[in-house]
Amino acid sequence: MAHINLPDGFPGISAGFTFRPETAKPMRELAHILLHESSSLTPGERELIATYVSSRNCTTFCVLSHGAAATAHLGDAALVKQVQTDFTHADISPKLKALLGIAGKVQQDGKLVTAADVEAARKEGSTDLEIHDTVLIAAAFCMFNRYVDGLGTWQPSDPEMYAQMGKHLAEEGYNAPSIRQPVGAS
Amino acid sequence: MAHINLPDGFPGISAGFTFRPETAKPMRELAHILLHESSSLTPGERELIATYVSSRNCTTFCVLSHGAAATAHLGDAALVKQVQTDFTHADISPKLKALLGIAGKVQQDGKLVTAADVEAARKEGSTDLEIHDTVLIAAAFCMFNRYVDGLGTWQPSDPEMYAQMGKHLAEEGYNAPSIRQPVGAS
Repeated sequence: MAHINLPDGFPGISAGFTFRPETAKPMRELAHILLHESSSLTPGERELIATYVSSRNCTTFCVLSHGAAATAHLGDAALVKQVQTDFTHADISPKLKALLGIAGKVQQDGKLVTAADVEAARKEGSTDLEIHDTVLIAAAFCMFNRYVDGLGTWQPSDPEMYAQMGKHLAEEGYNAPSIRQPVGAS
Repeated sequence: MAHINLPDGFPGISAGFTFRPETAKPMRELAHILLHESSSLTPGERELIATYVSSRNCTTFCVLSHGAAATAHLGDAALVKQVQTDFTHADISPKLKALLGIAGKVQQDGKLVTAADVEAARKEGSTDLEIHDTVLIAAAFCMFNRYVDGLGTWQPSDPEMYAQMGKHLAEEGYNAPSIRQPVGAS
């Protein structure tokens, strides 16, 4: 049961968003820019970073929803799992591996990121904007994850619900109205 | 030196905001709603929560800037220090102590917040909205702190600079244009 009187039927972050639409608006906008708007990192790569950070924070709702969005983009659920368990052996680019290394450090503490980490990402072709956005995606998911967990939100485990949500997020992004509906609403 | 080519002369988060204005906008808006807009928690209380979380994350720029904002609101620099070192003995309300307890747990991991923590805050008079905003302030500063640290931003220590910044933030909030200027700019 949620710690405060959140609206019924909304899983995970959507319950907090519905309870407090004023703060939901900039939080949705930030997610939309970082994960969905045009970027030299593909939406699938950015959803992998979000999923990886959420898995390190053990936030079920975010792991399953962003993992489903990554799967919808990339068409490879096994790869999305592999990135969470050991990205160093996953079939992803050396550049994305270097960025996931930075994201993993930010998830712990931003001060752990070293000049050598950034240089390694640059050597694999990362731009300053890609490094910036990787740091911010990791930092933002440390917020989203804590928000979802700290409110004690309902985090269902039905894979079909997440598959639908992931498809919707991959197609529409994070400002679309229909993800504001409770589960089961038309 | 910052990890990426951030604009010169901007301390802490303002360097990231200037580098990437698209993401700065929702991040500023979120801070403005949580810390400055009308609420049953005073702006000084909310800045204390932000300062406390930043001190637990050891992010110098955020501790000093939000500590200065809290001091500008409350007129008591010693109290702001005391909240960081041991809030349980600080001269603040039992309600704020209960909320700081929740914020400290969210800073570590949102899953640490218990029904008993929330019940204790309610017994001291906290509303659901105050509990929600406390969780989100703590979660958001886990983002802001990691963003500031993960980019390797310049975090000066000049107390006078922070005193001016704190006064400006306390008066204008987080959407005001002049905090986008580099230090020393007119």
